[in-house]
Amino acid sequence: MKLLIKDVLLKNVVTDILVEGNKVSHIGEIEDTNSIDKIIDGHRKAAIPTFINGHTHSAMTLFRGYADDMSLEHWLQEKIWPNEANLTDEFVYWGSRLACLEMIKSGTTLFHDMYWHIPATVQAVEDSGIRAVLSTVLMNTAGKKQGEALKAEAQHMIRQKLNSRIRLSIAPHAIYTVDAELLQWAKSFADAHNILLHIHLSETKTEVENSKKNFGYTPVEYLHSLGVLGANTVAAHCVWLTDRDIELLSAARAKVIYNPNSNLKLASGFNFRYKDLKKADVLIGLGTDGCSSSNNLDMVEAMKMASLLSKVVHDDPTAMPVKETFDLATKNSAEIFNLPLGEIKEGNLADICLVDLQRPDMTPCHHLLSNIIYSSNGSCIDTVICDGQIIMENRKVKDEELILEKASESAMKLFYE
Amino acid sequence: MKLLIKDVLLKNVVTDILVEGNKVSHIGEIEDTNSIDKIIDGHRKAAIPTFINGHTHSAMTLFRGYADDMSLEHWLQEKIWPNEANLTDEFVYWGSRLACLEMIKSGTTLFHDMYWHIPATVQAVEDSGIRAVLSTVLMNTAGKKQGEALKAEAQHMIRQKLNSRIRLSIAPHAIYTVDAELLQWAKSFADAHNILLHIHLSETKTEVENSKKNFGYTPVEYLHSLGVLGANTVAAHCVWLTDRDIELLSAARAKVIYNPNSNLKLASGFNFRYKDLKKADVLIGLGTDGCSSSNNLDMVEAMKMASLLSKVVHDDPTAMPVKETFDLATKNSAEIFNLPLGEIKEGNLADICLVDLQRPDMTPCHHLLSNIIYSSNGSCIDTVICDGQIIMENRKVKDEELILEKASESAMKLFYE
Repeated sequence: MKLLIKDVLLKNVVTDILVEGNKVSHIGEIEDTNSIDKIIDGHRKAAIPTFINGHTHSAMTLFRGYADDMSLEHWLQEKIWPNEANLTDEFVYWGSRLACLEMIKSGTTLFHDMYWHIPATVQAVEDSGIRAVLSTVLMNTAGKKQGEALKAEAQHMIRQKLNSRIRLSIAPHAIYTVDAELLQWAKSFADAHNILLHIHLSETKTEVENSKKNFGYTPVEYLHSLGVLGANTVAAHCVWLTDRDIELLSAARAKVIYNPNSNLKLASGFNFRYKDLKKADVLIGLGTDGCSSSNNLDMVEAMKMASLLSKVVHDDPTAMPVKETFDLATKNSAEIFNLPLGEIKEGNLADICLVDLQRPDMTPCHHLLSNIIYSSNGSCIDTVICDGQIIMENRKVKDEELILEKASESAMKLFYE
Repeated sequence: MKLLIKDVLLKNVVTDILVEGNKVSHIGEIEDTNSIDKIIDGHRKAAIPTFINGHTHSAMTLFRGYADDMSLEHWLQEKIWPNEANLTDEFVYWGSRLACLEMIKSGTTLFHDMYWHIPATVQAVEDSGIRAVLSTVLMNTAGKKQGEALKAEAQHMIRQKLNSRIRLSIAPHAIYTVDAELLQWAKSFADAHNILLHIHLSETKTEVENSKKNFGYTPVEYLHSLGVLGANTVAAHCVWLTDRDIELLSAARAKVIYNPNSNLKLASGFNFRYKDLKKADVLIGLGTDGCSSSNNLDMVEAMKMASLLSKVVHDDPTAMPVKETFDLATKNSAEIFNLPLGEIKEGNLADICLVDLQRPDMTPCHHLLSNIIYSSNGSCIDTVICDGQIIMENRKVKDEELILEKASESAMKLFYE
């Protein structure tokens, strides 16, 4: 399959982009279009790399708007956990299909997920045509038996042959839900299988206070003390870091995922130390978190929120300028997940968004990335290519109506039957 | 003209809405549709009141993305003021047309504007079919002569016969650009003509510090000391209020417009004391500010930002719940501008949005307002009615291509010729 994007704006130049198989094979004018299977007219469109959502819980789209404006404790205990107990593979499949649909419609083709019923999510990602790194969850709040069962699940999943667009990681949920032994098991499992270790870390003040009380360490120090912190650590949130924490994250070459919407909505904290982490050379990605907390999966909105919040937190309107913000959601994240993505260049995987420039919020176009991040939102994405395949064209995605119907039905069954 | 919206979701009930002339005449099932001129199918749509943008500078859409990530001082002195000096009626007309187009496409039908070349904006609003309260600007940083000329402009404008959708207000720009005498003239002008007095107030820390140094008062105290603060005051920003300021605003029945995006992006401050203002019964509206600072005019995004930020500022995830947030942009603002808007009810002006419910970010629909505010953005608005006229249907607005072209051309001429 040869796909040609003709006359598209790419980094301030109008050019052609040739996709062969699942890769970008040539950038530059293509005159002979005889052997091309499909040509996309790039006129009045800009090509940008697709986005990478560094931390989410995809099937929780079913929880969107179900329980807002509540304290974290009530929210988890009354609304989230009791309903999660009733989840089935079918619910998770349609919740994840809805998540993938929403991600496609806002330009994301790779997400890092942490949730239950992994095989259902594997199937949803496969059917949606996008990419994922799916974390098998570990926790043992319910005792040793729970931990053993979840270890067995992880061991089972790692033996499966998966679609080339799907990888696994291991997710000890957090330091307050996973004991030291299981945290260390997760680390050895991640090392043995060369996969990432995905964890919620330093998300709330309470987590940090309890960690100090129970372990005598901050959450980051605690992971370090156990030998768990490493280059394969992908730590979500990190809104309550000390200087020492930043040193440890940097020394370990651990990765951090910033989730501004979720941190605000749950009032977890806003003081993400972007400038300090950047200065310490910590690789930072960006995530939406799940729809139960942040309510959507729009990475354009996440970029805007990250940038605006960083400015006011650092009392500096020049903090996190657009190019850096854009890199968080593209280039940096590609490095975190170790995939040739995040930039449109020859040899990279062909994951490409076309942005519609004919919109009021994209007019005038003094600066493309500024318009995308500060002015627009995910709806400016007109066309999405993943792994060389067109998965959205003119905002139309295959099976959209079916997915919306099935996901609605699933939510109704889960919550009200 | 009789317009019927058939089978639409309104406050959790599927019903019909009849519009006669420029008003909502009946809500409830309508069986006989013989005398109806136009029927809109409301199936899979929800009807909500249109939004009111309490503070903006509409023609500054031409500056969108022209100068981001800069300190306020450099931004104003190097990028904004030199270019504003070159504005003409034509630039302002197309800038305001673009603003109106963007507002229509995100569900806003009334905006409170503060900008130069008012007659051009009057024409743009008239041609766009929406409503505005347009402030004639006063300042005298350039001396007495400037002040006198701007007073004459205000006096000239107030004598004009305007379209019924357009009203005027008077805008002394800020306490640091308008001297005491001119502030007091503005107040007497507002009182004499029964119009609002629109002012930037307590926007930055520097403004407050200088006010204390120069006048011995906070900005709010200073306005109070001059007898300028009153029930007709509409104060934009107010991010640096003291307890005493809140008392004075409350006692004067002054109105406050919160502009979260702009306050973040310019790093003006995030500590908008929403709960304290609400407790003091101060009427609060919501604005986007101009596109030079906040980059778009999307009131849905402004609602989301206001709510999320309030939660983290008050360290309380229950702060500013969705219904209150929605009221800021609708009911409260209608009260501020003293118009029968902000709620769809019999007798009110027919300014109505239809929200598209068939979208991933609106699925599932546990809670409509939550989905609009926390999950979606202005692009969920499918149809807009203003003053009984359909001004957007299926996201199509009259003259959209022409406006985008002319606004782009105007920006190119203004900045690069």
